[in-house]
Amino acid sequence: MSKFLNQKISKITPYVPGEQPKHREYIKLNTNESPYPPSKLGVEYANEQAKLCYLYSDPECTELTSLVAESLLVKAEQVLLTNGSDEILNFAFMAYCDEKTPAVFNDITYGFYKVFAELNGVPSTIIPLKQDFSVDVDAFMKAQGTIFLANPNAPTGLYITLDIIEKILASNPNRIVVVDEAYIDFGSKSAVTLIDKYDNLLVTQTFSKSRSLAGARLGFGVANAKLIADLKTIKYSTNPYNVNRMTLGLGKGAILDKEYFDKNCKKIIADREFTTIELEKLGFTLTDSKANFVFAKHDKIDGKTLYLKLKDKGVLVRHFDNQRITDYNRITIGSHQQMQKLIVAIKEILGE
Amino acid sequence: MSKFLNQKISKITPYVPGEQPKHREYIKLNTNESPYPPSKLGVEYANEQAKLCYLYSDPECTELTSLVAESLLVKAEQVLLTNGSDEILNFAFMAYCDEKTPAVFNDITYGFYKVFAELNGVPSTIIPLKQDFSVDVDAFMKAQGTIFLANPNAPTGLYITLDIIEKILASNPNRIVVVDEAYIDFGSKSAVTLIDKYDNLLVTQTFSKSRSLAGARLGFGVANAKLIADLKTIKYSTNPYNVNRMTLGLGKGAILDKEYFDKNCKKIIADREFTTIELEKLGFTLTDSKANFVFAKHDKIDGKTLYLKLKDKGVLVRHFDNQRITDYNRITIGSHQQMQKLIVAIKEILGE
Repeated sequence: MSKFLNQKISKITPYVPGEQPKHREYIKLNTNESPYPPSKLGVEYANEQAKLCYLYSDPECTELTSLVAESLLVKAEQVLLTNGSDEILNFAFMAYCDEKTPAVFNDITYGFYKVFAELNGVPSTIIPLKQDFSVDVDAFMKAQGTIFLANPNAPTGLYITLDIIEKILASNPNRIVVVDEAYIDFGSKSAVTLIDKYDNLLVTQTFSKSRSLAGARLGFGVANAKLIADLKTIKYSTNPYNVNRMTLGLGKGAILDKEYFDKNCKKIIADREFTTIELEKLGFTLTDSKANFVFAKHDKIDGKTLYLKLKDKGVLVRHFDNQRITDYNRITIGSHQQMQKLIVAIKEILGE
Repeated sequence: MSKFLNQKISKITPYVPGEQPKHREYIKLNTNESPYPPSKLGVEYANEQAKLCYLYSDPECTELTSLVAESLLVKAEQVLLTNGSDEILNFAFMAYCDEKTPAVFNDITYGFYKVFAELNGVPSTIIPLKQDFSVDVDAFMKAQGTIFLANPNAPTGLYITLDIIEKILASNPNRIVVVDEAYIDFGSKSAVTLIDKYDNLLVTQTFSKSRSLAGARLGFGVANAKLIADLKTIKYSTNPYNVNRMTLGLGKGAILDKEYFDKNCKKIIADREFTTIELEKLGFTLTDSKANFVFAKHDKIDGKTLYLKLKDKGVLVRHFDNQRITDYNRITIGSHQQMQKLIVAIKEILGE
């Protein structure tokens, strides 16, 4: 850190992404990537665009915005594409929080909310999950500030139903509720259907998980047109060409190739059920995850030890240094074969 | 704008990018893009990476960071890659400005500096260019705050030499000087050679112009390792995977294919000289541009009228609604053929 860095930034503890090992071939079940490659159609579009990268991309992302809007049955003016959903989340912190409007979120949730709050110099109101990791809905209804709710939540995978989301939205129409649906496509219902009913709702989604584009950086927000106009002001004040040409191409293919998307989501859901059953047979306790990962603990082995022993065996999972969840590991659902290898590795570790 | 938007953001006037027309084929000389496609080697790398986009990119951008560092004869720890140079510039505003440390920049310069200052809620100290558009060096030496100097400047194209940059750096070692070298490769000397001598210097560059990657979003900062560490804190607190896999591929090709880069820079410099001579023959006055554009005015036709008449004829140039430069147009150097067509169009307009 230099002597020049201002106070606000020098106090931040940056987000720590999951390990991205370079020197060994691991079975990577630690960063919630899809095990399936991007749609071939998308790769074709991206390749066409690579050659055209001497020209700026369309700052309005007109074509892909329309395609996303159509796929969600909303209007193009209700959608804003961003450089991953991290960008739209940060925009929401910039737009709807300030010194007097804290960010309100669960104690155990996506680690970036706390970082974004610090980055933007806004206070955080942290609401602990209940003992069973369920959301304290009453506390959210009463809280003052802008609410950030990951649904399904990470790393627990737990989903809250739309009637609960509606209760929170309706409890205070003068406050924004951001529903971060990074994991919505693995078997739960999106709050996008509520944007015309609640003008205080912003839904964010990503192409990183269910559409196999973690390495392309594409996310979006969906809300009524006024909120989207707010967030566009920020886009045009930070990085108007935030989404590059090739990523727009991959995104277009991902939306048009709906069959491939549906097939991959189904496979991941089936392998989540397979993994859950196998881990339960081995004595694990799991949350009822609706995401592309499971969250599991075992009475006989603590979370960190299991993580380290799996790493030794070439399988990376994610362990969090957080007292409340230190017994657990978050395990991404990879291919069926990868999950079989995981189960074999765990059996070996437990049998040692 | 919604009723929820906070005060700071609602006061911003966003940056307005140059027109990106969709409905007619223009000769596009309005956004300082390169007329030459990206390096074929880069396109090959990008195509390989498109298929791998189901996996996150390397958040440290290890390989390309090393290649950029080698090409500049600096260390990898002295380089940070970003999503265009807009991102590293914004990071510098976030890191090195605050309520008590204003951003200091010229009145006529890259329009984004003012937007970034507003976005980050920091005051601006604006130093007018002299009558001849030269930089008021004494005013910069005396100014309190973090200095942002585009060199060559845009839209004037004027370059200040490194001994002047050094005078400003040395005048106050307790203040950061950011030298924004978006247009440095078209015939001027980079301040990168000064980073070991001055720990208060940050140089930013982009792949958008000289390396034909405007539509891929790739830029970087070069400074001593401590400043780079500051800026990395911000990267890891906003968007750790800010540069996607395909863009890293295009960037790698652009650096390795040095011959193609050199050839394109030479062609653009030659066509800048050609365009300058031809416009002077037609009675234009031009600044001594060292960038991939010229900045030109004519006694007989005002800037806006010329811009509109050229647009009618299918040639887009950039006119700025700013009193001090309203007589001028900024004209990007395209291919030789495009510049010939521009000259023909201007002759027709002047001869009408």
